[in-house]
Amino acid sequence: MTSTQLSSGISRRFLLMTATALPILLGPALPISLRAQTDPLPSWNDGATKQAIVTFVARVTQQGGPDFVPPAERIATFDNDGTLWCEHPMYVQLVFALDRVKAMAPLHPEWKTTQPFKAALEGDMKTLAASGERGLVELIMASHAGMTAEEFTKIVTDWLATARDPRFKRPYTELVYQPMLELLAYLRANGFKTFIVSGGGIEFMRPWTERVYGIPPEQVVGSSIKTKFQMRDGRPELFRLAEMNFVDDRAGKPVGINEYIGRRPIAAFGNSDGDLEMLQWTTMSGGVRLGLIVHHTDAEREYAYDRNTDFGRLDVALDAAAPNKWTVVSMKTDWKVIFPRSPA
Amino acid sequence: MTSTQLSSGISRRFLLMTATALPILLGPALPISLRAQTDPLPSWNDGATKQAIVTFVARVTQQGGPDFVPPAERIATFDNDGTLWCEHPMYVQLVFALDRVKAMAPLHPEWKTTQPFKAALEGDMKTLAASGERGLVELIMASHAGMTAEEFTKIVTDWLATARDPRFKRPYTELVYQPMLELLAYLRANGFKTFIVSGGGIEFMRPWTERVYGIPPEQVVGSSIKTKFQMRDGRPELFRLAEMNFVDDRAGKPVGINEYIGRRPIAAFGNSDGDLEMLQWTTMSGGVRLGLIVHHTDAEREYAYDRNTDFGRLDVALDAAAPNKWTVVSMKTDWKVIFPRSPA
Repeated sequence: MTSTQLSSGISRRFLLMTATALPILLGPALPISLRAQTDPLPSWNDGATKQAIVTFVARVTQQGGPDFVPPAERIATFDNDGTLWCEHPMYVQLVFALDRVKAMAPLHPEWKTTQPFKAALEGDMKTLAASGERGLVELIMASHAGMTAEEFTKIVTDWLATARDPRFKRPYTELVYQPMLELLAYLRANGFKTFIVSGGGIEFMRPWTERVYGIPPEQVVGSSIKTKFQMRDGRPELFRLAEMNFVDDRAGKPVGINEYIGRRPIAAFGNSDGDLEMLQWTTMSGGVRLGLIVHHTDAEREYAYDRNTDFGRLDVALDAAAPNKWTVVSMKTDWKVIFPRSPA
Repeated sequence: MTSTQLSSGISRRFLLMTATALPILLGPALPISLRAQTDPLPSWNDGATKQAIVTFVARVTQQGGPDFVPPAERIATFDNDGTLWCEHPMYVQLVFALDRVKAMAPLHPEWKTTQPFKAALEGDMKTLAASGERGLVELIMASHAGMTAEEFTKIVTDWLATARDPRFKRPYTELVYQPMLELLAYLRANGFKTFIVSGGGIEFMRPWTERVYGIPPEQVVGSSIKTKFQMRDGRPELFRLAEMNFVDDRAGKPVGINEYIGRRPIAAFGNSDGDLEMLQWTTMSGGVRLGLIVHHTDAEREYAYDRNTDFGRLDVALDAAAPNKWTVVSMKTDWKVIFPRSPA
């Protein structure tokens, strides 16, 4: 099977399975020369970026080599919004929050005259943006708290099943980056444990990350609100409170990594200034490390943005890439495809 | 190899390895009848307790059976103090804190006249106890904060290498329960993912849980203080602040499980009222579940305590065991040995 066939003819799920299974399935059966031709990253164009990834993996997995890292310490952390899935024109979680506010509005007549709810209901994004972080937190609390953890999981799952991105007309969980899915599978096939470390809500991601990325709930780190354990009618439940617990963004990312994972990653993947400290924490620690930034340079197939944007600004971290030897992916030139083909 | 040989003739580490590897090594080679004779829990006496564990594992792992649970959902959570290692006459972490205060005292002359430090330095446990939770938190902050995460890991590791339990004259990491080590390995051999969920400090446990229990840092949940990411002399570091972050005890345990693991366990193991809510959360959820309480009933080989003790009180949870069908282990009658044999 050639790279071209791999990237064009089959569905994402099959590709994920294949990329993971190939080294095992083909390992003992084929001679080395044939094995080398099975490209684990078929959606990545050949070039310096792909070479940097493959070289890093080869070095840290070479038994007896000077840069060998034992499998238990092969921790790789991935940002989510803009790194694994599309974050434009608005974070998916914010689209969800706005939809929830609309759905809940009949129970809250006061929202018609109270900001930031009035702006949210009227789709007045300018006023909403002007309400700042405080306004956004109010929206999040109104839409994410006041129910049990189980109920929230169901609300998220149901919403994702029907919501569609307005430009691409596809479910949001299909607007994930095919090259990054291959990268996740490639790292896991090489003994890495892959984690998400995202500024997004931990409970907003966990219901679907295993199915979509192959990342189980216990390997998802994110922002969270507080929950409270209580018995109700003789049954235990976790009730979601309208109070922030942890903000897993910027300097919070290394803190979250230390708290949830307890090991320092050897590879980190991001796309914005929110990932700067995670990249610093990962790569400035001695030893061979991989820091990688996804640069959105493809307005035609996805979006092009960096220094001037409301969602996923990439400015300081872009300047820090060269001096720190972080790999910068240009979506336009490094990626053969952006999204997986639609499921049949 | 008979059970008697297993439990008497070899070291703990070998036993751990063996218990995990046996099903794989012997699986295809031996007929079923021989396999059944390899007891995965050789330090457990036959009886209702051992039977309850084995029956539970058989039911949830029986492919196609009515109680089958897929491997990804086989989450088992273990308390640490009093469940996996000895917590008497004092929590090991408190012994550590007192030793640290003594070691740091020359830099803090004011401690000679300030409580609770004065009591700590003089070994006046009565006054120390009277200082209550607030006093203990002060001791913890003075001894656990004000350094980087890396530095703290080294302090803990160095201390555990030399500290000895006064009664058993052994390192604290050898005062772990041999039957529970076998149980951990048995569950993992049956596709379970084992987690620690402890009221103890997460950073106090992570440096040694992988070596001692086979539980990696990312599967340890515990109490924590806040940390702050900062660059110092061009190097990133996580600095430990004298401020509580999360108390992973009582109703905090289900909260911690949800936050760190994101899945509801199907088996939970504890020994005190601090584990009540974790046991409720785990077992009161429909489906076949295992709740287990280690009851310290062996004053000769370890300690005997339940309702009246400063460390690890077991009162409400003991009363809740029968109505909830939780298994209560009597150390005296259910366990052939308490601690592993000393390493050769």
